[in-house]
Amino acid sequence: MVDSITTEEVCFSRKRPDVYGDAHPKALLKAIQEEGDYLQNLTEQHVVSTDQFTRDELLQLFRLSAKYEGNPERFNTPLKGKILISAFYEPSTRTRLSFESAWHRLGGDIMSITDRSTTGIAKGESLEDVGEMFNNYGDCVVLRDNNEESVRLMMNSLRIPIINAGNGTDEHPTQALADMYTIFKWKPGLISDPDSTPKLTMGIVGIPSKMRTVRSLLKVMAVFPECFEEVIIFHDESAQKVFDEGQLEQLQEKGLNVTLSSKLNKRLPELDIVYINAIAWVGNTFESFGEKFVLSKSSPLKENAIIMHPLARGEELSTDLDDTHHNWYFSQARGAVFLRMALLTCLCQRTEQVMDIV
Amino acid sequence: MVDSITTEEVCFSRKRPDVYGDAHPKALLKAIQEEGDYLQNLTEQHVVSTDQFTRDELLQLFRLSAKYEGNPERFNTPLKGKILISAFYEPSTRTRLSFESAWHRLGGDIMSITDRSTTGIAKGESLEDVGEMFNNYGDCVVLRDNNEESVRLMMNSLRIPIINAGNGTDEHPTQALADMYTIFKWKPGLISDPDSTPKLTMGIVGIPSKMRTVRSLLKVMAVFPECFEEVIIFHDESAQKVFDEGQLEQLQEKGLNVTLSSKLNKRLPELDIVYINAIAWVGNTFESFGEKFVLSKSSPLKENAIIMHPLARGEELSTDLDDTHHNWYFSQARGAVFLRMALLTCLCQRTEQVMDIV
Amino acid sequence: MVDSITTEEVCFSRKRPDVYGDAHPKALLKAIQEEGDYLQNLTEQHVVSTDQFTRDELLQLFRLSAKYEGNPERFNTPLKGKILISAFYEPSTRTRLSFESAWHRLGGDIMSITDRSTTGIAKGESLEDVGEMFNNYGDCVVLRDNNEESVRLMMNSLRIPIINAGNGTDEHPTQALADMYTIFKWKPGLISDPDSTPKLTMGIVGIPSKMRTVRSLLKVMAVFPECFEEVIIFHDESAQKVFDEGQLEQLQEKGLNVTLSSKLNKRLPELDIVYINAIAWVGNTFESFGEKFVLSKSSPLKENAIIMHPLARGEELSTDLDDTHHNWYFSQARGAVFLRMALLTCLCQRTEQVMDIV
Repeated sequence: MVDSITTEEVCFSRKRPDVYGDAHPKALLKAIQEEGDYLQNLTEQHVVSTDQFTRDELLQLFRLSAKYEGNPERFNTPLKGKILISAFYEPSTRTRLSFESAWHRLGGDIMSITDRSTTGIAKGESLEDVGEMFNNYGDCVVLRDNNEESVRLMMNSLRIPIINAGNGTDEHPTQALADMYTIFKWKPGLISDPDSTPKLTMGIVGIPSKMRTVRSLLKVMAVFPECFEEVIIFHDESAQKVFDEGQLEQLQEKGLNVTLSSKLNKRLPELDIVYINAIAWVGNTFESFGEKFVLSKSSPLKENAIIMHPLARGEELSTDLDDTHHNWYFSQARGAVFLRMALLTCLCQRTEQVMDIV
Repeated sequence: MVDSITTEEVCFSRKRPDVYGDAHPKALLKAIQEEGDYLQNLTEQHVVSTDQFTRDELLQLFRLSAKYEGNPERFNTPLKGKILISAFYEPSTRTRLSFESAWHRLGGDIMSITDRSTTGIAKGESLEDVGEMFNNYGDCVVLRDNNEESVRLMMNSLRIPIINAGNGTDEHPTQALADMYTIFKWKPGLISDPDSTPKLTMGIVGIPSKMRTVRSLLKVMAVFPECFEEVIIFHDESAQKVFDEGQLEQLQEKGLNVTLSSKLNKRLPELDIVYINAIAWVGNTFESFGEKFVLSKSSPLKENAIIMHPLARGEELSTDLDDTHHNWYFSQARGAVFLRMALLTCLCQRTEQVMDIV
Repeated sequence: MVDSITTEEVCFSRKRPDVYGDAHPKALLKAIQEEGDYLQNLTEQHVVSTDQFTRDELLQLFRLSAKYEGNPERFNTPLKGKILISAFYEPSTRTRLSFESAWHRLGGDIMSITDRSTTGIAKGESLEDVGEMFNNYGDCVVLRDNNEESVRLMMNSLRIPIINAGNGTDEHPTQALADMYTIFKWKPGLISDPDSTPKLTMGIVGIPSKMRTVRSLLKVMAVFPECFEEVIIFHDESAQKVFDEGQLEQLQEKGLNVTLSSKLNKRLPELDIVYINAIAWVGNTFESFGEKFVLSKSSPLKENAIIMHPLARGEELSTDLDDTHHNWYFSQARGAVFLRMALLTCLCQRTEQVMDIV
């Protein structure tokens, strides 16, 4: 039997710790001038890959995200009357709840499918027919599927937008956009005052050929190569193929200075941002990245460095960092909801409801 | 690795192809005069079987469906504050999303149960007790269950309406109503100008004794026998028992001219409507109807014939027909949402909110 | 084939039978004077155990529940814009729908998690990290988990309120509050006119050491010991350990006169309330309490006795009692929704919207 509980034990506070960077959305809002026209480009695009967005579209998306995050209570009806079909065939709670929370915050309704076996797909129905069905039932689709090709097959028949929420090992575009948004929230000077703002040295612990989060993130960073002094990919020495064929060259052609290393602690003192993502999700199993790369309070972090992690975390990111100013991974998760709110608003053609000037 | 994607690849259009029959709801709306009193009969009836509706009730239901379909953006609050209990113990995504979309479009809230094992039923609770529980939690129930008797057992205690969304091989009334609605959308003259509108010759590929969709459809067609010249049931030659005992006689007594045939291509050139439904769902398995009956562009279809299929489809209905004017199966699926909106509005006593004159 | 159905067979009535005690909420509303300040204490407390509430807080909660139940249509927007995370890792439909119905009735939105294996927990994520995630996505959490410790681990990081909806064999606080609310609905004189209202003799069929419903109920009854003449715990003769160590003493120290017996029928004629709860749920299996304790119309019940049962019921509570005035178990289930509405309103800091005087 569990002991009696006291009132003190059950009390809690709603106040967020200072370390989570609350002031930053407003600074980013000021750093970017509103040019809503670019968001109109997003009204008839599926969201499949970070490749598809231009620099201006991304900046306006980040600006709208910052507007939402700086004033969460203000905009609650842009998606009123709109229905989201939330299809998570590959198990996920974090990404699903992030999208569903974003959609609810904007006043919309949701229908969830979390079990592939209840769908016609299990009965042999084609994904194109599933897309045609969705056209009749909702206004937007979010899809996570082990099968890399599903999202593109559905695009053949969809007349409503679909967002790729993670397809096999291929991409996870909204996570990457949310991550870039987080970086600009931290250093809005990179946009508003590039000459006076030092470029960032960023370390990414992960394998681009196998982790969709990292693959998508590098692509979006390559839209803003001028922000980064160097991007170091830290990988296990035994990793066979860190990049897919042509992947590294594509990034370098865009001006992103990507290097490789297997010695995290050696270079840690130079890193402004440490992005760690130790676990590779392949369907329902996972391959652990091993214990060599671990961040904790005793790691030789640069004094004002921030740590990012898409979460869920395991042993690679110690909880003793949670209460330090290095902790930007919680702010990253928080910001992701607002980034998704911004994207969903555009996709559903409701941008005019949230612009300063229409 | 999947190749980089271009903006062109991710763009899509919201515009529906002309073949999907968009103008037709408005024509049906004109063909039926509004007599809302008949809809009042539906406020305290469970929806179990197509047997239970009168001709006038059906016509008013179709009229309200056409009003919704002709003006989808206009009515979005009749079910505000109402809660649907969506209980799909037999796997289904299509029918569940169709109902849930209809309910959301009308402004209501939904609670879903998709796993029978989480309910008291798994713990030995009686269905009557489940019904009493539902009385306290929601305003309407939609139930799909392998077990044919479940809906009737729940009716013993329910004080809110329940809709049978498919019970074993017995009935699927709302699908049948949606199908009849589709037929009248195509030929509203059958109602408004019967003397000048030729009767329809309709072929149904399926086995009434085993397919709930066909069983329910024939019953509703028997309310309008004057619309049909002949209804031919096409069946596999090896089928043992095409009709249940007494089933054919009941239809013929109501004036529906039902005949049988096993040679689809021979009679295809005469058919105005071809209704194909090849797969019989028995619980979680299915029996395939075989490959003998297949419709494709090369089938000897009558020039202006339309094809109907409740979907999901398999090989019996070729995708090369999708872009032809024969394709009324997509319009059929679209219309089913509006038919369910009309029915749910009546069951929840909100008809007055959507009548032209109250 | 099921026979044709007639209209009479599908008709139903919405009217609730008189035996369900509809007048009683209004009587309770009159019996308690509104003192909304006590409800402010609940705005920053998790709901873990019935231990944590004071007498005044409970009375104001019951008053608000009665206000909701006496006028169900009136208050439908206090939780507009608020999101509930409904996490039922241990299967349940009854409690989940009760909470979700309560939240919808107040105008809020819901995200459901019904499968633990889709969460990060299955991937080794800590419950504290799950709590931090929930902080970003919702405004309130309801959790049911086999694992007794889960709710307390999540409390370490949550900055939004969590309600324990049943943790292993430990507690089920909202069920107990709903049960005490039911008792006061039946006998509001216990509050408003204690000198003239006879104390209650109550029998509880169940084992406090093993049934969280009974454990929580006894704790809340111990806040109102003056209402009870005697509380008799009826247990199977073979039961090894009826109370946990110290449990009986704690109740007696608060003035609750608790006795034990194994002869239900012998004492039944004295009982004003019979609370029966035969089945102990331990995770996904159950231990049946056996057939010795069964209530039916032929049981020697006191003339005006009421029967309570948290449901789902088995053979221990006969259906022949459903249409008698002893049936307060249906009213108990109905009232539980309103009790949860009251609690959720307070937890989400929306009490001011429903007070008579602010």
